[in-house]
Amino acid sequence: MDFNRSRLPVAVLGATGTVGQRLISLLANHPWFELTALAASDQSVGKRYADAVRWHLPTPIPARYRDWIVQPSRPPLDARLVFSALPTDVARQTEDDFANAGYIVSTNSSPHRMDADVPLLIPEVNAHHLPLIESQRRRRGGRGYIIANPNCSTIHLALALKPLHDAFGITRLVVTTMQAISGAGYPGVASMDMVDNVVPFIGGEEGKMESEPHKILGALADGHIAPAPFRLSAHCNRVMTLDGHLEAVSIEFARKPLPVELRVAFADFRGEPQALGLPSAPARPIVVRDEPDRPQPRLDRDEQNGMASVVGRIRPCPVLDYKFVVLGHNTLRGAAGGTILNAELLVAKEMV
Amino acid sequence: MDFNRSRLPVAVLGATGTVGQRLISLLANHPWFELTALAASDQSVGKRYADAVRWHLPTPIPARYRDWIVQPSRPPLDARLVFSALPTDVARQTEDDFANAGYIVSTNSSPHRMDADVPLLIPEVNAHHLPLIESQRRRRGGRGYIIANPNCSTIHLALALKPLHDAFGITRLVVTTMQAISGAGYPGVASMDMVDNVVPFIGGEEGKMESEPHKILGALADGHIAPAPFRLSAHCNRVMTLDGHLEAVSIEFARKPLPVELRVAFADFRGEPQALGLPSAPARPIVVRDEPDRPQPRLDRDEQNGMASVVGRIRPCPVLDYKFVVLGHNTLRGAAGGTILNAELLVAKEMV
Amino acid sequence: MDFNRSRLPVAVLGATGTVGQRLISLLANHPWFELTALAASDQSVGKRYADAVRWHLPTPIPARYRDWIVQPSRPPLDARLVFSALPTDVARQTEDDFANAGYIVSTNSSPHRMDADVPLLIPEVNAHHLPLIESQRRRRGGRGYIIANPNCSTIHLALALKPLHDAFGITRLVVTTMQAISGAGYPGVASMDMVDNVVPFIGGEEGKMESEPHKILGALADGHIAPAPFRLSAHCNRVMTLDGHLEAVSIEFARKPLPVELRVAFADFRGEPQALGLPSAPARPIVVRDEPDRPQPRLDRDEQNGMASVVGRIRPCPVLDYKFVVLGHNTLRGAAGGTILNAELLVAKEMV
Amino acid sequence: MDFNRSRLPVAVLGATGTVGQRLISLLANHPWFELTALAASDQSVGKRYADAVRWHLPTPIPARYRDWIVQPSRPPLDARLVFSALPTDVARQTEDDFANAGYIVSTNSSPHRMDADVPLLIPEVNAHHLPLIESQRRRRGGRGYIIANPNCSTIHLALALKPLHDAFGITRLVVTTMQAISGAGYPGVASMDMVDNVVPFIGGEEGKMESEPHKILGALADGHIAPAPFRLSAHCNRVMTLDGHLEAVSIEFARKPLPVELRVAFADFRGEPQALGLPSAPARPIVVRDEPDRPQPRLDRDEQNGMASVVGRIRPCPVLDYKFVVLGHNTLRGAAGGTILNAELLVAKEMV
Repeated sequence: MDFNRSRLPVAVLGATGTVGQRLISLLANHPWFELTALAASDQSVGKRYADAVRWHLPTPIPARYRDWIVQPSRPPLDARLVFSALPTDVARQTEDDFANAGYIVSTNSSPHRMDADVPLLIPEVNAHHLPLIESQRRRRGGRGYIIANPNCSTIHLALALKPLHDAFGITRLVVTTMQAISGAGYPGVASMDMVDNVVPFIGGEEGKMESEPHKILGALADGHIAPAPFRLSAHCNRVMTLDGHLEAVSIEFARKPLPVELRVAFADFRGEPQALGLPSAPARPIVVRDEPDRPQPRLDRDEQNGMASVVGRIRPCPVLDYKFVVLGHNTLRGAAGGTILNAELLVAKEMV
Repeated sequence: MDFNRSRLPVAVLGATGTVGQRLISLLANHPWFELTALAASDQSVGKRYADAVRWHLPTPIPARYRDWIVQPSRPPLDARLVFSALPTDVARQTEDDFANAGYIVSTNSSPHRMDADVPLLIPEVNAHHLPLIESQRRRRGGRGYIIANPNCSTIHLALALKPLHDAFGITRLVVTTMQAISGAGYPGVASMDMVDNVVPFIGGEEGKMESEPHKILGALADGHIAPAPFRLSAHCNRVMTLDGHLEAVSIEFARKPLPVELRVAFADFRGEPQALGLPSAPARPIVVRDEPDRPQPRLDRDEQNGMASVVGRIRPCPVLDYKFVVLGHNTLRGAAGGTILNAELLVAKEMV
Repeated sequence: MDFNRSRLPVAVLGATGTVGQRLISLLANHPWFELTALAASDQSVGKRYADAVRWHLPTPIPARYRDWIVQPSRPPLDARLVFSALPTDVARQTEDDFANAGYIVSTNSSPHRMDADVPLLIPEVNAHHLPLIESQRRRRGGRGYIIANPNCSTIHLALALKPLHDAFGITRLVVTTMQAISGAGYPGVASMDMVDNVVPFIGGEEGKMESEPHKILGALADGHIAPAPFRLSAHCNRVMTLDGHLEAVSIEFARKPLPVELRVAFADFRGEPQALGLPSAPARPIVVRDEPDRPQPRLDRDEQNGMASVVGRIRPCPVLDYKFVVLGHNTLRGAAGGTILNAELLVAKEMV
Repeated sequence: MDFNRSRLPVAVLGATGTVGQRLISLLANHPWFELTALAASDQSVGKRYADAVRWHLPTPIPARYRDWIVQPSRPPLDARLVFSALPTDVARQTEDDFANAGYIVSTNSSPHRMDADVPLLIPEVNAHHLPLIESQRRRRGGRGYIIANPNCSTIHLALALKPLHDAFGITRLVVTTMQAISGAGYPGVASMDMVDNVVPFIGGEEGKMESEPHKILGALADGHIAPAPFRLSAHCNRVMTLDGHLEAVSIEFARKPLPVELRVAFADFRGEPQALGLPSAPARPIVVRDEPDRPQPRLDRDEQNGMASVVGRIRPCPVLDYKFVVLGHNTLRGAAGGTILNAELLVAKEMV
């Protein structure tokens, strides 16, 4: 492997899936990363990428990658870092194989998210969890490691919770999601399940939303993460939107703020990506809308190139302290964009 | 007015609207009521009903009413009872006019719902509130009075809450709705607001949902209703379903039941309409589905001819005690069917 | 096999699919047929029907069939007639096996539709093709035979064409379809392909629509069908409707009628099922709507229990002679209901 | 009026509507035009633009215009050219007033489209119709005049027809449209008409589509346009897509080409905007897709910034000569983008 290049060589695992397609689009003109390999499952290996993929984005396949030959999702690949958009059933082993072989793995898949020494990373929220990497590297006995992106609904919830938790101390919250169909990949949700309908169930989703935020917002002490102690209940629903997960939140604090404090905490929030000027960082990670009927998925999901969480409808809650709505793009910040931002943080922190 | 008929003569106010259409369909073959007049706004008065209405139901306009001439929404009408599906802005005055002129008004409109001596009636839930009618009659100085149907989301919530409140004592709940477009009437919600979208706001809806259940589940004492003392928070959203409001509930009790007790309380619930055998009463007012992904609007809204609430996904809540989902048809039990069932109760109780 | 029963014993092949579900619902209370066996693919064989099926209809699984054990789709089955809703890839051989074993097969699948001695049957249109059965029986050397239902779009087109062809002689027509997602079965069309979208392609559909009507409307002479000689072009599109195929037709005649003649030909049309009083026959096989914006899928697909074709927008065509729109339910008359009506015709004609 | 500016001062009439919003977005950074005034109906006059408009685009209101005060849609306005997105009922008189007062009017509204001396302009198709302006100026007795944009469905059809008509001579065609809801503006189509539905009727649309192409593709001779002599039949349908009109075409030629000639004629087509390098001109006005299932509205409407027509599914037609599908963005090239491109052509031709 030859890394004498001005940009870091990266590969995409699961390159033909919906998240893989987003990754490739976002990496096509990335200032820090150079896409060097596309890998997918055995049925795609050896084919031209344009033949292997069923492309779903309104922008075309970046021309330079159309004729690339799809490679197996196994080491070695000509890359220093691999972005993983692998399906759950193969992700655990494959990602371990890459990490153990010395690669950095920035994954969007779920199997390693709750591993004790894998940072479940949202750069604005818990960049201070990166020291976990050193223990992970020791465990693996090499330079390779895994960092994980949270669940697509969790990311936008956790982004919105961060400034509130820091300022007021969250004690309890109830969240109800209305999630887009792209979250299930392709073919994913059958149209017969979605026409004139809502499905009040997404397999495994409530469990992820009820566990991941505790880790993400937890404190690092003695090399371990102490889960944030608030209580969290999630109701997850699938609705007929293409992109953009909408979440209705009721929340209680240790110290109840004034409404204006809540708004200011959201709007003024900035994190490491903004301080470091990471290429994919939104100028404002949380955008507040003051109209009574916003945010809305189709109108607001592309805010800040789909990298922001959009908050609105901040108002008192008769049961807990406040209610608000948060929306975010599930395949940009919630998946492909999030894993790229994670990798940018590693570069900026000189951990590659 | 001549009431020497075997069935009670009834009229429909607001006969051209979406709820009015449902009323007419349901009354076309009603065993106890005889539809005798169709009334609507001045722009429809004097027209044939078939010319005045833009009919939205998949079943046709009942043939016998097509040529009826639309009458003004003012007394007198050849009827003992009037069903009101009037728009909010004219409902208050018009309904008072009819009640003061001696008519019984069974309304689906909101203005009188919270009046102290107007029963906000769901026959399975609070038939014991009917004595309010006597004080109302005294106030009006005649035989006329108003009874009101709750908001379309409130009805299904309150139906589901009734057996729980009786058995375990509700202390707090958070509900998030995903409401169908027919709830806004026609033309109502613009398609540009609904394609690939959710609108996390419905004007006035959260206020109704947060106030009405306290009255409905309140106790009648000394001729007044003492509001039920639980705390309730509502998040209301519009989604692209035609009919059927879906509601995700987190709930806390004074005495926390076992999960099986919760299920039994729902499934075994029966009320006055079932005891009295009212014509529009569902055999089971609450139907429990045990599949992990039910109820769903398109599949379950027509349960028991759209007169039942369908409950599913009963499971522990990490913040309050339990979570569940409730679904119900918003223009049948939630509007037209509810006002007819209310009127049937009056007949059975000999209050007409 | 014991056929000493008052109703004809029938089985359903492909009982777990979407058309199979419709068949079972329609057969549950059929006056002439007694459902005696449910058969499906090997992965369902041996399971309770309620466990094997993913039920999609808003009405529940008929209670008596829930616990039936799914049988293999192979002879023998305890039935005289089998309804086939098998997938295309297995239908050809399996249906031949049943027919050669002496069963009557009423199929909705496509492989045998264009076989020379298989009636491609719409009872109102070409009951006079039934003599083909005798040659087929001779070929098979027994009492068994196959009759086929046309494609779901073809059926409604051919029904609408029949009275026109008889009266005015069709010479050319262009039809553009907007077809419902249920036509592709379940899971069928991915929701990501349908949200905010139309897919202007349905694999194989245009070929079927451009060939089947020539056979259906052809003349039987000397034991063979001479294809109807008109020219037909089809454009097939998939749109986000659940049920109901909508078709826009431009048509030219040998003798150009007056508009009123066209309307009368549609509205007065009756066929054998009406004359014979078949249980599933619609009173009017073609219903004409005179409103400028009808028929519409959601409002008109259930006309005559989903067994009618609904025609509207009859108007002159600047290129051919006339334009009109025809709509019909694709899984009722267009699939399950059609195969049952076909079987009813066989019973009425004493061909079972 | 002071035109000593580097860019041409332009105003938008009907600035609060959906096409008005698109115009403002497109003009915000236009190299040749400087937006100087926003005009709308009396109910908006005097308000801040951000208060008067209900903004529907996913990109925000250009910041500089938020606080502009909405002006009346009457002369004088501080502009040389006005873009008109006025509603039909007021467009005829208002546009005449501006033209008679010396302004150039580039309109998207329909009333003047078929006026004999008003170019019905698609720059790639009939830039040679611009001499009509001189007769119009003479009629009006000044420098002002009107040019009109065709109907949103007509534009994409006419663009696709142009290279075919030039090369092979169109004799007849039948087109069936599946049109997006944004074509009806806001609130426009009710969601209750669109959920699980198609409406096979759009008021006035078929008449426009059957008349406008004859003018657009007509020849200019002796100062008049001789309508193109082909015969054209249109079926217009509304489907649940946000943007992008899809049209299925069957077409016959004076000289029947080979399929490859058809494809080449589409793909190689260029017009004046490409030759002149107009700022809004797509590099390729017609883009050909070779996949069997393209173009699709959501995936292809933004091709070339929404300024191209996308053609696919070129195949033989059993009735006429060929079939194909054409898709285009109805509010970009089909409305706002089209009127801007028209104005750019005027600038390039020094007719302002």
